[in-house]
Amino acid sequence: MSAPPASERRLIEIIRRAVRRAPGVRVGIGDDCAVLEPDAGSLLLATTDLLIEDVHFRRRWATPNDVGWKSLAVNLSDIAAMGGRPRWALIALACPEAVGLDEAEAFYGGVQALASEHDVAIVGGDTAASPGGWIVNVTLLGEATLAPLTRSTARAGDVIAVTGTLGRSAAGLALLEATPAPRDVAAAAAADVTTAHLRPRPRTWEGQWLAAAGGVTSMIDLSDGLATDLGHLCEESGLGARVELGRLPVDAAVHAVARALDREALAWATGGGEDYELLFTCAPEAVERLAEGLAGTTGTRLSAVGEMTAAADGIRYLDAGGRAVPVRAGFEHFVTGRARA
Amino acid sequence: MSAPPASERRLIEIIRRAVRRAPGVRVGIGDDCAVLEPDAGSLLLATTDLLIEDVHFRRRWATPNDVGWKSLAVNLSDIAAMGGRPRWALIALACPEAVGLDEAEAFYGGVQALASEHDVAIVGGDTAASPGGWIVNVTLLGEATLAPLTRSTARAGDVIAVTGTLGRSAAGLALLEATPAPRDVAAAAAADVTTAHLRPRPRTWEGQWLAAAGGVTSMIDLSDGLATDLGHLCEESGLGARVELGRLPVDAAVHAVARALDREALAWATGGGEDYELLFTCAPEAVERLAEGLAGTTGTRLSAVGEMTAAADGIRYLDAGGRAVPVRAGFEHFVTGRARA
Repeated sequence: MSAPPASERRLIEIIRRAVRRAPGVRVGIGDDCAVLEPDAGSLLLATTDLLIEDVHFRRRWATPNDVGWKSLAVNLSDIAAMGGRPRWALIALACPEAVGLDEAEAFYGGVQALASEHDVAIVGGDTAASPGGWIVNVTLLGEATLAPLTRSTARAGDVIAVTGTLGRSAAGLALLEATPAPRDVAAAAAADVTTAHLRPRPRTWEGQWLAAAGGVTSMIDLSDGLATDLGHLCEESGLGARVELGRLPVDAAVHAVARALDREALAWATGGGEDYELLFTCAPEAVERLAEGLAGTTGTRLSAVGEMTAAADGIRYLDAGGRAVPVRAGFEHFVTGRARA
Repeated sequence: MSAPPASERRLIEIIRRAVRRAPGVRVGIGDDCAVLEPDAGSLLLATTDLLIEDVHFRRRWATPNDVGWKSLAVNLSDIAAMGGRPRWALIALACPEAVGLDEAEAFYGGVQALASEHDVAIVGGDTAASPGGWIVNVTLLGEATLAPLTRSTARAGDVIAVTGTLGRSAAGLALLEATPAPRDVAAAAAADVTTAHLRPRPRTWEGQWLAAAGGVTSMIDLSDGLATDLGHLCEESGLGARVELGRLPVDAAVHAVARALDREALAWATGGGEDYELLFTCAPEAVERLAEGLAGTTGTRLSAVGEMTAAADGIRYLDAGGRAVPVRAGFEHFVTGRARA
């Protein structure tokens, strides 16, 4: 029998100090459960994501602070996709024994930095030793006063739109994984895409605005890539889709990195995953109003990229000449693919 | 780029089929978040636990079904410790690629078996590939209408009591780990203690009954062992404690296994961990009423084992002669200790 190592007790003290008491938190870290006070009449949203070293990130290019940031970001994106307001997070962390307290502290610092931006309180968690690499599980709870937007309520004829731009995260991952690193990528472009991969900024306010604006019929976040996530939305809604590849919003930085690595920017935009943008459907007549309103309120652009069709049409990606182009779905992981329950 | 493997898509289908829609679940598995409807006026309880192969269990002696069962059980115990009603679970599972779908299905079957017993709905989760062993994270949400019982509200002079018996789980673990297996342990005793370790039965109804009965001043579950968990309760309440070792409830099966393995039953009862019994404090005059009421309602026995004292007295364990005996705290893990945030 051995007592919990002093390092782990100190870690919990660090967590306690790092995380703030917040509204709606009656009991936070330090008891068997967090005790929370949901707003009266609100629906509760709950999502959980497991991030594993050498599956979802590599310590060679992701700092503990990055890992902390991203582990919360991927969950914030799920709450955003339903138009919810994120509130409370539970953080479970398992590290190899050799990991220093400073690294664990940096991890919680990364979680807290993003949590503060999105008004999320860290209210509990778990720590363990890992016999392998880093293991992180974040559960995020949120609230919604309106009916949350789901994947299953798109209608044929709806326009398909996305926030922001696509393929930045995949470009960043390709750059982080490239050995040797290509020399002919401008520092600003490299920083843009690697930051998009390491420290994504989930669309919390955009999701809430879109849910409240009216006219949005379904929504999902782009975690596994446009092709996969649009596939989920079509499947759940019992519909097909037509996407015009020429309308996909792709940054100049992504094109620059693609050229330097001899890769295809469009493949990153369609299959890349981890952009954590929002994909939604709406009535055609609502697009302009939503685009102007969202840009005016949050500064985030919208791009209409296609249309929902009948299920029998399947999901088609068309080039500028209107020809169907095969698009591969799926998010690149190091070990294997990942799906979400 | 690779699509999520067909096996993972089938896994999600298996999960969807296995888990039931339940009251309070507006959207379950299959969207970005679960959408839940808390009871009006209830407080929300949230807890999360990470279970890692070769840290918390070994596949040599724990079946996937056992692992699923236990991963929910440890969280149920946290809700029980606050007197709450468990409601919704999120299950994240990462397996090595070689793990077959039948094993993953058996895991979810184990979760579902215990979930059904405790009226818990599985409403979401995550799946991933693991580059090492099995990794499980369960987050459990519950509700409480009364003020939840915490660790920090014990009073000097309160009696310390525990449900059930102590040391069974540690005896079971010792037996599972023993090579060669001792021959002179009766099958019934072996089954009793190994089942206690592999498939613990959390005290959900006991916790709710105790919280509602009145007179209980603080409560914690015995996950890390009496010495560690009583230490938490004393620290959070700013008190000391005196425990009479002769009053600790220890089953005959535990004594039998201890004899066979040449170990100390009392060390398992004080330091063993994972019994998932409840430890609580109450006014001395309430003990008899609580013991009779709990036994009558749930069939579970209570044992008064000591008394809360002033912080300056520290935590003392006394033998039958009233002499202080050193007791080691801590829960035995294979890699290292674990603490809870």
